[in-house]
Amino acid sequence: MKPSIPKGTRDFTPSQLTKRNYIFDIIKKVFIKYGFQPIETPTMENLSTLTGKYGEEGDKLLFKVLNSGDFTRKAKSFDNYKKLTFEIAEKGLRYDLTVPFARYVVMHRNDIVFPFKRYQIQPVWRADRPQKGRYREFYQCDVDIVGSDSLVYEAELVQIYDEVFANLNMNVEIKLNNRKILAGIADVANLSDSQFIDMTVAIDKLDKVGMEGVRKEMRERGIGENSIEKIEEVLEAKDFETVKSLLQDSTIGKKGVEEIETVFDYLTDADIKNKVTFDVTLARGLNYYTGCIFEVKALDAKMGSIGGGGRYDDLTSMFGMKDMSGVGVSFGAERIYDVMEELDLFPKEDANRLKVLFVAFDAATHRYAYRGLQKVRAAGINSEIYPEPVKMKKQMKYADGRGADFVAIAGDKELENDTFALKNMTTGEQRQVSIAELIEALG
Amino acid sequence: MKPSIPKGTRDFTPSQLTKRNYIFDIIKKVFIKYGFQPIETPTMENLSTLTGKYGEEGDKLLFKVLNSGDFTRKAKSFDNYKKLTFEIAEKGLRYDLTVPFARYVVMHRNDIVFPFKRYQIQPVWRADRPQKGRYREFYQCDVDIVGSDSLVYEAELVQIYDEVFANLNMNVEIKLNNRKILAGIADVANLSDSQFIDMTVAIDKLDKVGMEGVRKEMRERGIGENSIEKIEEVLEAKDFETVKSLLQDSTIGKKGVEEIETVFDYLTDADIKNKVTFDVTLARGLNYYTGCIFEVKALDAKMGSIGGGGRYDDLTSMFGMKDMSGVGVSFGAERIYDVMEELDLFPKEDANRLKVLFVAFDAATHRYAYRGLQKVRAAGINSEIYPEPVKMKKQMKYADGRGADFVAIAGDKELENDTFALKNMTTGEQRQVSIAELIEALG
Repeated sequence: MKPSIPKGTRDFTPSQLTKRNYIFDIIKKVFIKYGFQPIETPTMENLSTLTGKYGEEGDKLLFKVLNSGDFTRKAKSFDNYKKLTFEIAEKGLRYDLTVPFARYVVMHRNDIVFPFKRYQIQPVWRADRPQKGRYREFYQCDVDIVGSDSLVYEAELVQIYDEVFANLNMNVEIKLNNRKILAGIADVANLSDSQFIDMTVAIDKLDKVGMEGVRKEMRERGIGENSIEKIEEVLEAKDFETVKSLLQDSTIGKKGVEEIETVFDYLTDADIKNKVTFDVTLARGLNYYTGCIFEVKALDAKMGSIGGGGRYDDLTSMFGMKDMSGVGVSFGAERIYDVMEELDLFPKEDANRLKVLFVAFDAATHRYAYRGLQKVRAAGINSEIYPEPVKMKKQMKYADGRGADFVAIAGDKELENDTFALKNMTTGEQRQVSIAELIEALG
Repeated sequence: MKPSIPKGTRDFTPSQLTKRNYIFDIIKKVFIKYGFQPIETPTMENLSTLTGKYGEEGDKLLFKVLNSGDFTRKAKSFDNYKKLTFEIAEKGLRYDLTVPFARYVVMHRNDIVFPFKRYQIQPVWRADRPQKGRYREFYQCDVDIVGSDSLVYEAELVQIYDEVFANLNMNVEIKLNNRKILAGIADVANLSDSQFIDMTVAIDKLDKVGMEGVRKEMRERGIGENSIEKIEEVLEAKDFETVKSLLQDSTIGKKGVEEIETVFDYLTDADIKNKVTFDVTLARGLNYYTGCIFEVKALDAKMGSIGGGGRYDDLTSMFGMKDMSGVGVSFGAERIYDVMEELDLFPKEDANRLKVLFVAFDAATHRYAYRGLQKVRAAGINSEIYPEPVKMKKQMKYADGRGADFVAIAGDKELENDTFALKNMTTGEQRQVSIAELIEALG
């Protein structure tokens, strides 16, 4: 049989993992510096936890796990696969990190010190149609604070974005808006609650369809011409001050403006390296956001958003725990990886690379090389020996393939003099060294 | 609704993750030093890859993932759940790291530089009955070399075990045997091939049932009294030399003895910190082992094996790739964790812990503290600010709960003098410091 893997899934080779972990390590380091703690949740959750949380479309995209043993025993609905699903499967694979986090907070509420600052980097699974850049198994990388409505945390999340991308050498623009400002627009445009949702859904598409498209969608959704005109006026405002003055008659709009001002005020004390901008047209599709919303774009690459998030006031109420305000953002790990590749931003040298390969010509020199290897490893240097004294060409080919910095060659002369011929694989230069000199050269 | 998680699965809290990652980080560092590279394989594999690889019992314990969409379309066998499983599920969750590794090697054979030294640390899933210390989702941690039959690698794996457990401060005994020595015993006891398997299965239970139990099992499995006597004679041999002389008439037995001698000879050059012993009674249940076999026991805790492995000659032939000799061992991460807990071996201080929490009394001092925080973070120190200037007691309680080393208090006096009152949370000692002094004290 010729083996394969399920469509939309991937093996990660050593070089891919090295790059992915380079990104994650930089992200984690910043999270930890800002006082966030890691958690992990199980790959499988009860379907009762997951179902209904991601809309009808999301329910379809959940991977369901068949019950063990004779799963047909309690099954009845063999003519209705939707009903049958719940009779034969009670577990599903994690679809995102948000719902499991909410579940975690509720289950561990008595052991958590609030405000709870957590990060979580784990794969999720979605039965989406696989296509270029879209996988059925992919990593998410989330950072949230729950249990406080302080705007210090909004500022902190902007700083985290800024610092992570600066450390990755990516130029980005961090965009800010506030759902209360959007609510203020709806307010001054005299929209109903459901029209507010319609408006945000339309604005969310601005990048793709332009203002004309947004207008068309709002019109189709039954928003009146006067309202549309008012909405457009705000969306096309040149600066924050103009938005502020246009919303001065809306209580909620003013609240949103104030929140944005507070966040930017905190940021005046921070050493920000990237562009942080207020963008009144930023909407974020998700309706559970209630305050500040964020989005990050790479400036030097064609790519959609590489991160986003916002303030939510009601995350845990789906599990019966009320009044738990939170704010969080996520990093689009797959897209960040692709941008880093495109812009050639990964470091040329992996810190974990092989520093030296020992090679030898016969049993005696092989054994001598093995002794040298022990000393190099005792000095903490990444090193290997070619396992047999086969043809030198084959051993050197291995050194090349593994990308070793150096090869330490043990021949009769070296064995006699207690030295090694140390070959620099980049320059080709070769010199005789004692084991102490070898360790110094590599250390 | 009251949320829960599937039985046999776990959430990992920050402190549990810190401990688990402490173990994994030490293991990874040793792997990398010895020239191993990481890979990761998908959580879901095709059932055609997994089925039949773990015996009948293993097939039952595989978690199967329901096909997407109307999975009943191609289903017929509603009266036979075993048949039905394969009609409605074509994917399963990873059951171990060995079979996916074999599949990986076969699929990536043209890109791999052999010998291929890989490590893999990922969770696996088994629908076992959950009980104390046995979970349905747990981590495995494997290290293998494929594409060489050199005994250098056997020695290397012993050294890796030794170095990892020394770095974890665990005293262990690393036991070695060789399946060829067991075959040699079968040889001198005149056993058939199937009796050889019966013998190893019986010997594998020696720890649990004692020599009397082993004898009984061999008798029940139809091994004759003369053979049993011969087998016992070897198993009870006092030392390696006695075993060697007892097996001198068996070609395969002599080969096994030679291999063990070569491995121990390599190890004479290594700086071994733990006990490494030859144990002729070590059998390892798995029949795919063909050469050296390993097992590790913790010496200061009551616990079964915390690691094991061996040489196999035929791992990839299940996917049609012949003659790919390999050797590997695994670390029993869950058990190592439990032993470390029992012996109190985890470090008292987490390197990623919160170093300082800024607290304040009112809006002005809070803002002053926020500015101090920026400087401390710029110096790379893990730090936080309590998000609001609420009652000091509440802020101090948070510092306690988060285990902060220090609290930096900003009051009117500090704001005026451009200082902070730095409180050591262990000693209770408190002193006035400038921000530069604060950074120096924490850095």
